[in-house]
Amino acid sequence: MNLSHIEHIGIAVKSLETAIPYYEEVLGLKCYNVEEVVEQKVKTAFFMVGQTKIELLESTDPEGPIGKFIAKKGEGVHHLAFAVKDLEGALVDAEGKGVQLIDKTPRGGAEGLSIAFLHPKSTMGVLTELCEDKNK
Amino acid sequence: MNLSHIEHIGIAVKSLETAIPYYEEVLGLKCYNVEEVVEQKVKTAFFMVGQTKIELLESTDPEGPIGKFIAKKGEGVHHLAFAVKDLEGALVDAEGKGVQLIDKTPRGGAEGLSIAFLHPKSTMGVLTELCEDKNK
Repeated sequence: MNLSHIEHIGIAVKSLETAIPYYEEVLGLKCYNVEEVVEQKVKTAFFMVGQTKIELLESTDPEGPIGKFIAKKGEGVHHLAFAVKDLEGALVDAEGKGVQLIDKTPRGGAEGLSIAFLHPKSTMGVLTELCEDKNK
Repeated sequence: MNLSHIEHIGIAVKSLETAIPYYEEVLGLKCYNVEEVVEQKVKTAFFMVGQTKIELLESTDPEGPIGKFIAKKGEGVHHLAFAVKDLEGALVDAEGKGVQLIDKTPRGGAEGLSIAFLHPKSTMGVLTELCEDKNK
């Protein structure tokens, strides 16, 4: 597959109210968007650093994916997302090479991107998202 | 502090022999360097994607930092490294804002960079490295 850059890094945090001031006041990044993604049971906050977004994820429900992640592993990096050209072809190629897919076909993600996840069992423990911006 | 981009992402893996073919053949990235860092008890492999390096870390000793990390948390993202201007000033500033520093002053890192780590207790669970390239 043809990866161009790291589109974003998803980081699980207990509290955006605590985390946003750290990213803004200590690291000097600017939070440009906060939104709730009801179906994923998270509130998200976005920052840009170079080519890459930092996506902070606070769980709104202990039974949601981020709630469970924090209960098991604590706060920290939850997933890496790479920008890819031809996401559909990339998924066919990865599956053909034995990678377990969470999403067999692309689905809609934030900011109008097409996205799909690879299973961390096949990616040495790194929950991996592939993103394609079809508007580019 | 003034962060320009994500310099690298350190990922703990059990085996470079298994992980390098995944990064090369599935993700399509090119491993451009493999080296052992004896004092850190790791073998490392580097890939470039956009502005950011992926640094795979295989432990050479179960008692080393990566060996202990994998025993506790499993394979996965170990640290994030941001490129910063004026690393010394950034450390003074961070400490003044209550961040616990692992390195109070910069030390030498790979590829001639000056580096320092912030403690994950102060950074919402993300072991955070700051890097300055004084040759730029």
